[in-house]
Amino acid sequence: MNRAPIGVFDSGFGGLSAVKELRRLLPGEDVVYFGDNARIPYGDKSPDTIINYSLQDAGFLLSRGVKAILVACGTVSSVALGVLKDRVSVPVVGVIEPAAKRALELTKNGVIGVIGTNATVKSGSYERTLKSLDPKVRAVSVACPLLVPLVENGYVSDDCLITRLALREYLAPLKRAGADCIILGCTHYPLIRSLIADEWGGDELVNTGLEAAKTIASILASSGSLSEGTSGRLSLFSSDSGDTFSQKASFFLEEECPEFERVDILSYGPDR
Amino acid sequence: MNRAPIGVFDSGFGGLSAVKELRRLLPGEDVVYFGDNARIPYGDKSPDTIINYSLQDAGFLLSRGVKAILVACGTVSSVALGVLKDRVSVPVVGVIEPAAKRALELTKNGVIGVIGTNATVKSGSYERTLKSLDPKVRAVSVACPLLVPLVENGYVSDDCLITRLALREYLAPLKRAGADCIILGCTHYPLIRSLIADEWGGDELVNTGLEAAKTIASILASSGSLSEGTSGRLSLFSSDSGDTFSQKASFFLEEECPEFERVDILSYGPDR
Repeated sequence: MNRAPIGVFDSGFGGLSAVKELRRLLPGEDVVYFGDNARIPYGDKSPDTIINYSLQDAGFLLSRGVKAILVACGTVSSVALGVLKDRVSVPVVGVIEPAAKRALELTKNGVIGVIGTNATVKSGSYERTLKSLDPKVRAVSVACPLLVPLVENGYVSDDCLITRLALREYLAPLKRAGADCIILGCTHYPLIRSLIADEWGGDELVNTGLEAAKTIASILASSGSLSEGTSGRLSLFSSDSGDTFSQKASFFLEEECPEFERVDILSYGPDR
Repeated sequence: MNRAPIGVFDSGFGGLSAVKELRRLLPGEDVVYFGDNARIPYGDKSPDTIINYSLQDAGFLLSRGVKAILVACGTVSSVALGVLKDRVSVPVVGVIEPAAKRALELTKNGVIGVIGTNATVKSGSYERTLKSLDPKVRAVSVACPLLVPLVENGYVSDDCLITRLALREYLAPLKRAGADCIILGCTHYPLIRSLIADEWGGDELVNTGLEAAKTIASILASSGSLSEGTSGRLSLFSSDSGDTFSQKASFFLEEECPEFERVDILSYGPDR
């Protein structure tokens, strides 16, 4: 048994959709969440910058004594996971491999669609992971740079025409390729899951945060490191502050949530 | 005469639309541009964070020996200009006051529309400045958080329906209020000027970068600090790097442009 919290981080609020899944699976675990709102978004930045930011984010979580880290960000999981695993002493789980495994269970025709940020798609992380698990599979990826700003600004309801138009454009290549399953390669996307299903005309959508949460639960269970409590606490931290942070957070978490505490993220790193 | 360069900064590429105007007005001046692409966008961040970033950005320009600074960012001009003026020893010109003066020249009915980022609109900077210049004027401001991501991702052509839909939503309150002039309160917006004019149904649009460039030209002329050269050099710096930076930059500058040099922005500040 290990009562230490599980750490989760993302560039902003999106990763809270993974926290929601984690708390459903493991309601007894304490969770420490860090959102890097002062530097969001990560998806348009260079690999060097993303790695640098991620090391600081993980460094902060380690300073809170976490027993494992869930990287609830498609961009960081695509670009910085190897470096994080090398530099961090606790188990680190990204969203790519768990989602790829789930997609391979779901697909019938072997054509898997992937939607994500510019950095995620450019990294080729999903294609590479899918191919390494099953060389016969075909992956088709589309960068969707407008979806994070749309979700962050509340363009998420089913009657939102702007989001529908953006999705229509982004999903067209996946339809043409005949994908029978789509990986939602960014933790913001589950918030517009029903819009995506509707515009795509299918519902085999992989929620990367959920799959990563399952993986971390199984790692902790197999090493006897679950806490066995019953009502885990959630602590929220951010590199920025704002009047509407708690309101935005509840939208991703689907529960009332505590206030955010501000962190000077520049003073953290895994080596300190 | 002063041969030192003029410094210009923004959160990203948008400020290059002001550099374009500055170089047309003052073709003999050397210009040093800094874009904070590693931390873009500023418009959704807190005032503290925006001030902190701006002091570093100005600090970098000062380290290059600039004789004046044009803050080519509506968000920084709204939130951090006072602090910058207090802490920086060369003239600092923001976009708010020059644009407000121009809008007051243009308006006939005294109702002025303002569009900008969340932070710009929340700061109330344009209303405050307009009212201080003419207490009878009425200002109506609308936050347009999708426009920067739309412009940054190339959704700028006249047939772009997504951008049109976003503008239709944002401009509706300005139409209802009867505004006869709109301040484009963000240096990204001149890139979609024709779309804005078309969706609004008017063309009295204030280009904030152009007005700020005129102001800085007049300050330098009145103190005898123009360089009197004929072919000024443009040097481009950024806190991030990317394969397509020069291509993106030419889009804002409307000219071929040199490579960007990467800067470790955390090592700068006006006090160092």
